[in-house]
Amino acid sequence: MKIAVVGLGIIGGSYCKAIKAYTPHTVIGVNRTKSVAEKALADGAVDVIGTPESLGEADMIIFCMYPQACVDFIKENGKFIRSDAIVTDAAGIKTALCPQLKSLSEEFGFTFVGSHPMAGKEKNGFGASDENLFMGASFIITPCGADKKAVNALASLALEIGFGTIKVTTPEEHDRMIAFTSQLPHVLACAYVLSPSCPNHKGFSAGSYRDVSRVANINSKLWSELFLENREPLMAELETLNENMNKLYTAIKAENRDELAALLERGHSVKQALGE
Amino acid sequence: MKIAVVGLGIIGGSYCKAIKAYTPHTVIGVNRTKSVAEKALADGAVDVIGTPESLGEADMIIFCMYPQACVDFIKENGKFIRSDAIVTDAAGIKTALCPQLKSLSEEFGFTFVGSHPMAGKEKNGFGASDENLFMGASFIITPCGADKKAVNALASLALEIGFGTIKVTTPEEHDRMIAFTSQLPHVLACAYVLSPSCPNHKGFSAGSYRDVSRVANINSKLWSELFLENREPLMAELETLNENMNKLYTAIKAENRDELAALLERGHSVKQALGE
Repeated sequence: MKIAVVGLGIIGGSYCKAIKAYTPHTVIGVNRTKSVAEKALADGAVDVIGTPESLGEADMIIFCMYPQACVDFIKENGKFIRSDAIVTDAAGIKTALCPQLKSLSEEFGFTFVGSHPMAGKEKNGFGASDENLFMGASFIITPCGADKKAVNALASLALEIGFGTIKVTTPEEHDRMIAFTSQLPHVLACAYVLSPSCPNHKGFSAGSYRDVSRVANINSKLWSELFLENREPLMAELETLNENMNKLYTAIKAENRDELAALLERGHSVKQALGE
Repeated sequence: MKIAVVGLGIIGGSYCKAIKAYTPHTVIGVNRTKSVAEKALADGAVDVIGTPESLGEADMIIFCMYPQACVDFIKENGKFIRSDAIVTDAAGIKTALCPQLKSLSEEFGFTFVGSHPMAGKEKNGFGASDENLFMGASFIITPCGADKKAVNALASLALEIGFGTIKVTTPEEHDRMIAFTSQLPHVLACAYVLSPSCPNHKGFSAGSYRDVSRVANINSKLWSELFLENREPLMAELETLNENMNKLYTAIKAENRDELAALLERGHSVKQALGE
């Protein structure tokens, strides 16, 4: 296959490098800033630098851009995409995005399959990309009506480049779960490091601090877009967390040791039941 | 030196193993449950199994028990401790504990230096102990009036067995900082996994979920004691976090993208300024 990757940031760059490292496919790299595409070419991450017009050569296209930028790009350049091409995105939200991309796929005649690679780092840009970023990670597919053949082609590529799990689901379930597994920890991390104690943590901290604060090193532009595009599920998770934090706070304030231990034990049990 | 370690759980067991692995000192292991002490002996983690009465042989004693159990043990057995012995604890709270241990040291004539090894795992017991648990970690000392010689002896041992940083401070500063760096993440982790979404996270989760939820696998008895013994600083951190979470929630609810991005950017800046 000829695979075009549009947007050579950490995710797009990692797709390119992983496809080059682990498959025989040809990679066409497309990026707005030319110097980044040239770096990708020099690094051997792509076989050729593409343009919107050259997308017609691609059998599969992976869009690794901000959600709204992806829609805008396809609106303008969808006419260059072949009707037998499989197109996917890499966005962390699905309900707000997939119907728009599905509708564009019908307008231009290509096949759209939504997907979300569950991997990342607390760094951005092509420089942070890594051929092993996806190793063992989960690859979530939201077929959005695409046929089995297209879904399987995408799933096969994901497994080839190192993903460990394929999860097929609806945009709505994806967004509810991602609100909990990914967005909530990012909100939490930012709120956590805003404590006046944070700048003085060194010498007093270990793994707990490191782990909770890690993703506070956030791309604020990307994540504010992701949070607002998934506002309802995220608000629901924030409300649930707030209720549970209040229960713990109340037990600590009241010095109610039994209630406090019971709440902590419930947390412990959830992890134990998951075998974690 | 002959060093006695009282309480052979994960922390006490790791002290024994690290002292045996990295120093020429002799280790006397004392544990209420005899089978654990026998396991430690069989593993070569201790040179000899001790009793409260045999503490008189020790030049240094490290108490690795629950805070209140430590006070009770010394009240009963302090008479066996030599007056030239250096005694330390390993407790995660200091303001509520150190004055009691200091007062017992004056009663029985030994030297007390408070300390807190900033290391652990989300597992308990001797089976989870590890000679490399302390590698690179911070060792916090609260001298509580002990002379320089005793503080230096303890600091030297800490560096010998792998700690990377020595931090000397007061019990009060220790407790304020630990409320933020360690206790708050533990409360958070428990509250987080109580979401109804948690049992279904598999396939939808990656590093963010793993990191925030990790310490929810908590020893509920130990941590409820630690939280209540450090109630005021912990409540202050919970209130600060709650305020910052509310600011983020409000910005998301109001779809105020600029305010949301500004709050996330503040989090990002804190981490950047720390070089993390």
